[in-house]
Amino acid sequence: MIEFWFEFASTYSYPAAMRVERVAGEAGLGVAWKPFLLGPLFHAQQGLTDSPFNAVPVKGQYMWRDLARVCAEEGLPLRRPDIFPQNGLKAARVTHALPEAARPDFVRAVYTANFAEGATISDDSVLAAILTRFGHSPELVFAQAVSNRVKVELKNNTETAAARGVFGAPTFFAPDGEMFWGNDRLEQAVRWALTSHQATPKTKVDAS
Amino acid sequence: MIEFWFEFASTYSYPAAMRVERVAGEAGLGVAWKPFLLGPLFHAQQGLTDSPFNAVPVKGQYMWRDLARVCAEEGLPLRRPDIFPQNGLKAARVTHALPEAARPDFVRAVYTANFAEGATISDDSVLAAILTRFGHSPELVFAQAVSNRVKVELKNNTETAAARGVFGAPTFFAPDGEMFWGNDRLEQAVRWALTSHQATPKTKVDAS
Repeated sequence: MIEFWFEFASTYSYPAAMRVERVAGEAGLGVAWKPFLLGPLFHAQQGLTDSPFNAVPVKGQYMWRDLARVCAEEGLPLRRPDIFPQNGLKAARVTHALPEAARPDFVRAVYTANFAEGATISDDSVLAAILTRFGHSPELVFAQAVSNRVKVELKNNTETAAARGVFGAPTFFAPDGEMFWGNDRLEQAVRWALTSHQATPKTKVDAS
Repeated sequence: MIEFWFEFASTYSYPAAMRVERVAGEAGLGVAWKPFLLGPLFHAQQGLTDSPFNAVPVKGQYMWRDLARVCAEEGLPLRRPDIFPQNGLKAARVTHALPEAARPDFVRAVYTANFAEGATISDDSVLAAILTRFGHSPELVFAQAVSNRVKVELKNNTETAAARGVFGAPTFFAPDGEMFWGNDRLEQAVRWALTSHQATPKTKVDAS
């Protein structure tokens, strides 16, 4: 199992979200989808009140160009959003309001809305359309999304991320807790998961 | 030809320096070695007066771990320096004091001294020992290193880097000016150089 920690506003989380199941799956690994909020971490760790890609324009300029190349190599559409970063709080809460098995489809659709379709992902109608497309009742899911259970789960995710040393997104964790930052580290995280001690079942080690 | 822009204090420039000739060479491409000073860029672009890996400890902690994994995969020794970042000004000037053909060996040796041998690369005796090892006269090279020609060349490199949008090291440029940041983008830069328009000789295009 690979843990995939993502923030809906994060640009490189978009290609990561679109390919994590395929890359992990080819190695026989499942994916645990972990939405969290990066804003509080950026603020606490770096004093940032905006994306570092806005705070440092020369980095932002490169990021958009690099992202375009990454998406082109992956065959993913990319349209630079008018608003960046978008507010992903509602989408993150909706993710946790859904049953776990339904989350990956929703997450990928939100990333596509944000980075390929020019949609505003903090807009209820955008999220409702995605939910409807996958057979969910927006009314029921939105009600769950503001429940205390969901709010606490998302808050816990963000606090757990901070406690484990996360400072950006996407971040992957191998089963032994080894951390990998960035879409371009996904393959390395998978290799690590396949070779690290905890990834190998104890019985298999004893039997070999 | 791939341009390899590096700063001697930069951690990820170490594995990049050790492998850039091999990776580019396997694709039939030469390497232009371009030392520059990252400090002035960090300050002008981000207001930093120290490495971002020191300014944001959680990023620094991850970087050292990630660098260890990268070096392990490359079979490169790594010993975390007691002083980080080291002052690479003298080493950068010495690089430009050497004939171009002699620079790669010197650069690799300085990175090895900094990141594998625990040496202080701002120390004349460390640089002199490297020069002697490669058959140069430290006295003559050091005299050149403080010449106006060398000072101006290094200053120009740094200003050119800034003007071209460099904000970190290593940075690679393909022949058409496409920029790639980070050791982990070297392969992509090489692929780009092989497929971009300017990388294909004009005569070859006309003849095909």
